[in-house]
Amino acid sequence: MLLIKIGGGKDINRDFIAEDIATLIQRGEKIVIVHGASATRDEIADKLGAPTKTMTSPSGISSVYTDKKAMDIFLMSYVGLVNKRMVASLQKHGVNAVGLSGIDGRLWEARRKNVVYAVENGKTKLVKDNLTGKVEKINSDLIELLIKHGYVPVICPPAISFGHEIVNTDNDFASATMAEALGVKEMVVLFEAPGMLKDVHDEESVIATIEKEKLGDYLPYAVGRMKKKLLGTQTAFDRGVRKVYWGDGRIEHPIFNALNGIGTVIS
Amino acid sequence: MLLIKIGGGKDINRDFIAEDIATLIQRGEKIVIVHGASATRDEIADKLGAPTKTMTSPSGISSVYTDKKAMDIFLMSYVGLVNKRMVASLQKHGVNAVGLSGIDGRLWEARRKNVVYAVENGKTKLVKDNLTGKVEKINSDLIELLIKHGYVPVICPPAISFGHEIVNTDNDFASATMAEALGVKEMVVLFEAPGMLKDVHDEESVIATIEKEKLGDYLPYAVGRMKKKLLGTQTAFDRGVRKVYWGDGRIEHPIFNALNGIGTVIS
Repeated sequence: MLLIKIGGGKDINRDFIAEDIATLIQRGEKIVIVHGASATRDEIADKLGAPTKTMTSPSGISSVYTDKKAMDIFLMSYVGLVNKRMVASLQKHGVNAVGLSGIDGRLWEARRKNVVYAVENGKTKLVKDNLTGKVEKINSDLIELLIKHGYVPVICPPAISFGHEIVNTDNDFASATMAEALGVKEMVVLFEAPGMLKDVHDEESVIATIEKEKLGDYLPYAVGRMKKKLLGTQTAFDRGVRKVYWGDGRIEHPIFNALNGIGTVIS
Repeated sequence: MLLIKIGGGKDINRDFIAEDIATLIQRGEKIVIVHGASATRDEIADKLGAPTKTMTSPSGISSVYTDKKAMDIFLMSYVGLVNKRMVASLQKHGVNAVGLSGIDGRLWEARRKNVVYAVENGKTKLVKDNLTGKVEKINSDLIELLIKHGYVPVICPPAISFGHEIVNTDNDFASATMAEALGVKEMVVLFEAPGMLKDVHDEESVIATIEKEKLGDYLPYAVGRMKKKLLGTQTAFDRGVRKVYWGDGRIEHPIFNALNGIGTVIS
């Protein structure tokens, strides 16, 4: 089974991705898709006059602050807009996709973080109303049931907490947890760059291969959201994944290019 | 199998509905849910500065005008917000709900209306960019697969057209078509009224029972959205349904009350 993780950037080309998935499905490949929608979320948040707020943890990792209102916007953009438009793109290419959030069938069960710490103006403070959690349990039965019957699951956050709350969750970490539950050995991760770059301002500076044991050495090169992708990939290896292909989600044949080493291959 | 259709009014109490569904599931009842989200859609449309527009057909039936932008708002509200919050409510009551739109797994396939007629200021005009269609084909395999494995499908529009476009569709008509495909004999329809009213301004004027052959006689009493519900119920009978319970979706035990005749029973 191949897990394909699609970033939420605004230049990600869903149609190109759907085309490759259709070819893979015709070849008999089993596929599960996870996607983000951060650009769409931020756009809708701006339009609704409630711009996305981020927080920085004491260890320097930034994450989105998600109160009830931000969760509404999250649901509208991830589940409503991006998930369904992705499913329709796949349907257009003959792939019988079924879009699900982590809430549906308790697909992604998370332990809610009742309190998180955020650094603001050099001071560490407690944040209590943040709806966020870490995915610990996967309903792999439902995913396997759908795949067995010819459907392609297209999954996105939010997750559901053990206490039945809708919670935001780190998509890369959830993907790694799901990879383990499904016994996935290979993952394709598509984003808005041609691969891991030595110099974030130079798209020619792609690092072609990375040994998985040395992933940590590349943290200094990882800027912004890339840091989370790197940590997520590290978790995926800890959870039994053997090969991760990072590739460009903006170009034609994004998946085949990644699989053919045009991008960064980590193994 | 019982089909429960939940209206999209702002005073519909999802929590009360989820409680009754949990009881029915514990008793071994098989359930499929369809819901609307019109109030939420209109609210988001207003917030985004793109208020919902309606059209009136030459036969006097009003429907929502859905261009690309309105469809985005439709997806955000029906699929993103209301469907997922309903699924979470059910999960909270121990019901393993799975939320799906008509797009997912081609659950609701519709014939797109390439052209519709609308009456404006007394003149009939052609509307070409309206994304709408009539549901003709149901993926009952997917619904039955989920139910067989202990899930409760929670379904909402939009549908997908035979040409793979996302299209708005009459929810009551789609429910009737689905009832036929699934062999459903009984339906509960919940809305923001205690039943069919003789006088729309008097909530005491509930009509307790209606013979299905005489449904047409009640069209004069049906105001606004009620007209569509009446026509949808008529279609449901044409499609093999034997009993339809109309009940109040705002009160405690909305489903059991409707099943116990507190509302309007049509048979």
